[in-house]
Amino acid sequence: MGSAPMLDSLFYPSSVAVIGASRDARKPGGGFVRTLLRFDFQGRLYPINPTASEIMGLKAYPSVLDVPERVDLAIVAIPAPSVPKAIDDCAEKGVGFAVIHSVGLGEVGLEGKDLESKVLQAAKTGGVRIVGPNCMGICCPEAGINTIVSSADVSSEGGSVAFVGQSGWATESLLIAGSERGLQFSKVISSGNQIDLSLSDYLEYLASDAKTKVIAAYTEGLRDGGDFLELARAISKKKPLIVWKAGKSQAGARAVASHTASLAGRDAIWSTAFKQVGAIRAQHLDELIDFLVAFGCPYLPKGNRVGILTEAGGGGAVAADACEDLGLEVPALAEETQRELRELLQGIIPPFAGVSNPVDLVWITDPSLHVLERCATIMSRAVDALLIMTYYPLADESIAADMEKLQRNIGKPVAIVPAYPTKQYRGLGVYARHGLIACPTLDRAARAFSILVDYNKTLQNDLSG
Amino acid sequence: MGSAPMLDSLFYPSSVAVIGASRDARKPGGGFVRTLLRFDFQGRLYPINPTASEIMGLKAYPSVLDVPERVDLAIVAIPAPSVPKAIDDCAEKGVGFAVIHSVGLGEVGLEGKDLESKVLQAAKTGGVRIVGPNCMGICCPEAGINTIVSSADVSSEGGSVAFVGQSGWATESLLIAGSERGLQFSKVISSGNQIDLSLSDYLEYLASDAKTKVIAAYTEGLRDGGDFLELARAISKKKPLIVWKAGKSQAGARAVASHTASLAGRDAIWSTAFKQVGAIRAQHLDELIDFLVAFGCPYLPKGNRVGILTEAGGGGAVAADACEDLGLEVPALAEETQRELRELLQGIIPPFAGVSNPVDLVWITDPSLHVLERCATIMSRAVDALLIMTYYPLADESIAADMEKLQRNIGKPVAIVPAYPTKQYRGLGVYARHGLIACPTLDRAARAFSILVDYNKTLQNDLSG
Repeated sequence: MGSAPMLDSLFYPSSVAVIGASRDARKPGGGFVRTLLRFDFQGRLYPINPTASEIMGLKAYPSVLDVPERVDLAIVAIPAPSVPKAIDDCAEKGVGFAVIHSVGLGEVGLEGKDLESKVLQAAKTGGVRIVGPNCMGICCPEAGINTIVSSADVSSEGGSVAFVGQSGWATESLLIAGSERGLQFSKVISSGNQIDLSLSDYLEYLASDAKTKVIAAYTEGLRDGGDFLELARAISKKKPLIVWKAGKSQAGARAVASHTASLAGRDAIWSTAFKQVGAIRAQHLDELIDFLVAFGCPYLPKGNRVGILTEAGGGGAVAADACEDLGLEVPALAEETQRELRELLQGIIPPFAGVSNPVDLVWITDPSLHVLERCATIMSRAVDALLIMTYYPLADESIAADMEKLQRNIGKPVAIVPAYPTKQYRGLGVYARHGLIACPTLDRAARAFSILVDYNKTLQNDLSG
Repeated sequence: MGSAPMLDSLFYPSSVAVIGASRDARKPGGGFVRTLLRFDFQGRLYPINPTASEIMGLKAYPSVLDVPERVDLAIVAIPAPSVPKAIDDCAEKGVGFAVIHSVGLGEVGLEGKDLESKVLQAAKTGGVRIVGPNCMGICCPEAGINTIVSSADVSSEGGSVAFVGQSGWATESLLIAGSERGLQFSKVISSGNQIDLSLSDYLEYLASDAKTKVIAAYTEGLRDGGDFLELARAISKKKPLIVWKAGKSQAGARAVASHTASLAGRDAIWSTAFKQVGAIRAQHLDELIDFLVAFGCPYLPKGNRVGILTEAGGGGAVAADACEDLGLEVPALAEETQRELRELLQGIIPPFAGVSNPVDLVWITDPSLHVLERCATIMSRAVDALLIMTYYPLADESIAADMEKLQRNIGKPVAIVPAYPTKQYRGLGVYARHGLIACPTLDRAARAFSILVDYNKTLQNDLSG
């Protein structure tokens, strides 16, 4: 890994200019200003508009050159033909970074490519580093920065998940759906055409960013495959790197070619290569979110033995199937442990309930969670991770706090799955923010466990190698 | 397939007795009465309780023998030791069917097995047919019958989906999560210990039930494998049969053994066998629901060619990958078709948007859906099914009706996926009830298509063989 590019003032700017700011919040240039105000950005905000003197209560300037102080970050939301001139101005002004939302550049053919060259040349002349163009922006909640307009309902509280998305749709989808599942972000970048700053630049920065504990990326083409894999190997030794790579099929590659002008490589090769370097591949958005939730848990399983504790026999069977399908072990509990569980559960559950693993509580009515907690504690001695399926309402902060405490006492990862996988997304988020692996279904929780087991092996191999 | 057992008066009873009825709606015997009242059951309802004279406004009777008319269906919710006597009474009364919710019978060991034998003997003596015991009940919304208490928010409107669940949890999960996805049910049976009526009996009945268009089952053990497969083959020629079989792993089999006393068979053999007879295997609940939603579409794809229409390039790539992974084809559109699309989209979408398939609308603002509809119509000529990813709000009845009309005009199945897979479950249900294949994510829609393609082949092979 080379030295990470200095992107601090991209994510923590003291001053931001919005080039193409508008009074109309429904227009991108208005949406940016509104979102930055809503996110309580603490630096100075300068709307740039050739005719307006004031936008949303802020003094507006005709050009970035008229701003009375240094500008760390320019957000560019103007038609493509005007972008080169705007970047010229940024270069002259000494702007540090420009996030170019404008579309119609390198992705549209010769004319656009020509514009893009001019932008890049202007940027280089003045040392302006470029995010995009044809991107959806960046988000750093901790700094009050969010230019990904459609994700305005993302939590403004900072977190430890970083994401780089080549597709704006993928980026928005992760922000919106991930936020609902309880993910909280350190930095998010919609990287667009990557004419200057590239996926590798962002990854290097995030690898050394203390606020970031797990990194995910959506990518289509990978221009320098070998370099990327070396980087992925180096990152994976420090923190988990999850890659959602698309454009692998023939038609997918065609779709990619028309919208980002990059070429998707042979797919199977990538899967093998990712595995070799310890990076984790997510096949789709749901998996990506499940994995990120899983890495939000402060514990890694030290082995592949899973204990399953349910309040329904069918759920136990389904969970056990899902675990074994993925190479996880669901060991029968020792006779002595089973006896201990039977004693604990005497008179609480029917005598026919299974206590061998899966342990089937059938139904428990103790609202203090006391029985479930004691069962989990007894089981936890024999396994590396616990999967609990429960009828308890998930959105309850106090139950989530109890479960968090349980996980801390056990010191092993605990996944929580609602008995009924419905209307529970908000509830799942509450649990995930308490560090629990909250997944909508049993099979998805098992898959998340298997990824944690794999990553633990990656770290161990590295230590032993 | 033998002659189907006559279960009409189980699902469409004129009179129902609730044995163990309670004034307390939180107790099972009270919940049943309340749910039947809420479902607007049109027959006569007789609460049976040894001491109460009136329950929820209905006259109560001390025994089923005191009911002044014939009883078609008895719902039994009393402690296990009292069940044999209750079934004795039912036999004497000439009750047609008894749904035994009580637990603690065959699943609990020798004592329970003994009780179960007595129940069965009493039932046989009087010709009473038994559902359960250790079951969650039955549901036939069209008849106002629902004894699956925790699923009280299931639509009381009838539908065409039938389900038989050996696990109460699986049955409730499908009812609750499936209802949210827009499924509407013809008949649902939680089959429990199956001491009399068995999975095969229910399936035979449902195969010849005109209200049922698709049948699904959750099963753990399959006692007479060969017979089951013959039945599955016969059913699959008439209507789709989807099987969610659990208990396939070692630990899963252990869980099954302790809660239903049946043994799960070798798993891989089942997968192959299901395929050979044309039955469809769902690996988990989400798949089961997706497949049932898919079969709610009035069209089957005649081949495996999928057209992908998105409002985001990244989504197109992801969808194409998912389709090709499953053996579906995403054919490039002919030059002429592409030209036609370009002409239509001139000035509406940027010139760089892909029109080769996937077709990328980037964003469209026409609220009438006119452009999307015309694109879809042009594309549909070249493919067997259309997958549309859209930013349109899913919960909108009028847009759903427009999409339904589009599907009818095309005469080919249309899947709809929200651009952001979140907060949309209710919206998905609206689309599904309009006959569209509404799925939360692109990969799940692709999987649903692949199942329809397979089933179409099953039907064709049968016609040609």
